[in-house]
Amino acid sequence: MSMGKSILAGDRRALARALTLVESEPRAADEIIAEVYPHTGHGIVVGVTGAPGVGKSTLVDKLAGQFLARGRKVGILAVDPSSPFTGGALLGDRVRMEGRGSEVFMRSLASRGHLGGLARATPRAIQLLQAFGKDLILLETVGAGQSEVDVMGFADTTIVVVVPGLGDDVQAFKAGILEIGDIFVVNKSDRPGADQTMRELRQMLHMGPARTWQPPVLAAQAQQDIGIAEIADAILRHSEVRLSDPEQSARRVQEAERLVRDALADQLVQRVVARSKAEGNWQEVLAAVAERRLDPVRAARALHAEAE
Amino acid sequence: MSMGKSILAGDRRALARALTLVESEPRAADEIIAEVYPHTGHGIVVGVTGAPGVGKSTLVDKLAGQFLARGRKVGILAVDPSSPFTGGALLGDRVRMEGRGSEVFMRSLASRGHLGGLARATPRAIQLLQAFGKDLILLETVGAGQSEVDVMGFADTTIVVVVPGLGDDVQAFKAGILEIGDIFVVNKSDRPGADQTMRELRQMLHMGPARTWQPPVLAAQAQQDIGIAEIADAILRHSEVRLSDPEQSARRVQEAERLVRDALADQLVQRVVARSKAEGNWQEVLAAVAERRLDPVRAARALHAEAE
Repeated sequence: MSMGKSILAGDRRALARALTLVESEPRAADEIIAEVYPHTGHGIVVGVTGAPGVGKSTLVDKLAGQFLARGRKVGILAVDPSSPFTGGALLGDRVRMEGRGSEVFMRSLASRGHLGGLARATPRAIQLLQAFGKDLILLETVGAGQSEVDVMGFADTTIVVVVPGLGDDVQAFKAGILEIGDIFVVNKSDRPGADQTMRELRQMLHMGPARTWQPPVLAAQAQQDIGIAEIADAILRHSEVRLSDPEQSARRVQEAERLVRDALADQLVQRVVARSKAEGNWQEVLAAVAERRLDPVRAARALHAEAE
Repeated sequence: MSMGKSILAGDRRALARALTLVESEPRAADEIIAEVYPHTGHGIVVGVTGAPGVGKSTLVDKLAGQFLARGRKVGILAVDPSSPFTGGALLGDRVRMEGRGSEVFMRSLASRGHLGGLARATPRAIQLLQAFGKDLILLETVGAGQSEVDVMGFADTTIVVVVPGLGDDVQAFKAGILEIGDIFVVNKSDRPGADQTMRELRQMLHMGPARTWQPPVLAAQAQQDIGIAEIADAILRHSEVRLSDPEQSARRVQEAERLVRDALADQLVQRVVARSKAEGNWQEVLAAVAERRLDPVRAARALHAEAE
């Protein structure tokens, strides 16, 4: 059986192998993606983002348990920007979920040093999990920079997690990630200042443009399992609003455009580079660019002009 | 005069216009980059990264002043991952530098919503500043996620800024950004716990692999101008070590490969998409992918097979 068919049939090891390919050898995963793609796109992808230390991992665990109890098939993707350097920083997280390992499929996803690698690998990993049968995928990231914003672009619903006492960071926060949040969670809400943080967040959200969906600000203590059901409810409500939104099909087309452009870039660059290497001038071109004898724009033009 | 020549001649407005092009219309900037590229690659690019609130901006300002006093031509690029959402969060930062506006060229760089846009725009913005004559470029980012790691890949020397009392974040920090730092700065070093943070950082760095360059851990109070000269000295020392490193030319070739691959992707994808649009089947292909009737891998293959 092909690896794609095995995944569709629910073979866990085939899924694990395909995820590794997606991460480390994108081109080798092409055939698998082509095969499973028709069986993807259903369910809900929930992104969970926020600064280190706000309790994202715990919240993701609790939400996984909550949705499992509601009969959902749950997968977790922990998008890990640090792994190109450490080779698996999230081992702790993997162990963490072992208790329900047979029900929740958890996987951390690293970029393996490719520039923009995560932006390529993330949608494919989501597709693999969906093909495997998962209909509620939790996407967890570290930090709140551009790559997290990029990764959250693959989520249907984005949860932004903060803790009380944002203090000086409110401004940075406001400028940064406020507009990508569909649901805001003030975690560790038993800490002093929780009410104020919730009030400030609501004020900031009200200053923004009016939207069909007004993002709720919810209190939680994930460690104590407090507030989790309310967050799950908000996710389901947001999903309903989203699916009834007339913009929804335009968003699907935009998503498709991104996937097609990325696939085009992969295939076309690969072909030109392979030809140049076969002809023996690839290293020469790179040396000329490195030494500033040739610029990258003209180098690229010459490489694909030759290939025609 | 062409825009490229104007930049080489020191025309500030031409530089500003070219930076806007690089950010918002990458293809339109191709000719300018081709023209200025031979006059780039000199000087030092210093990346400054760290979580929000650690005082990166202040440190960058003080370092700019320090290098200015040492006769360097200083440029600042503030890489701003939030701007696709806010349209210019760093206005405050721009105003901040106005006092030495005529000497230090400061510009914030946003991705304008392109996926991976910053990874494309950043090296080009550096090239423009170098062509304009800057030989000490400070690259400032927000956050510590994958995109910051990507952006720091363009720096010759990377400074990681932290504040005392990392607490729970030490672990996240350790997993994340430790291996990209060439110099570590514990800012706000008058706060309690500074000594302990410095000790912990040094310990963590010693656990890593032995390197030619052992990253120093320096204390600073950027706001009070304390410790700035020592950081500038460390930057110059690191630069000397780097330039005498036999790996240096291999790094230049790697950098060139990235630039050539990106230029290839831009040019090749653009051509195939333009042809598909002209033939009137682009929207049809995207709709088929959006509706899962066609997968992105085969869609891309069909698009470039047709174009041949």
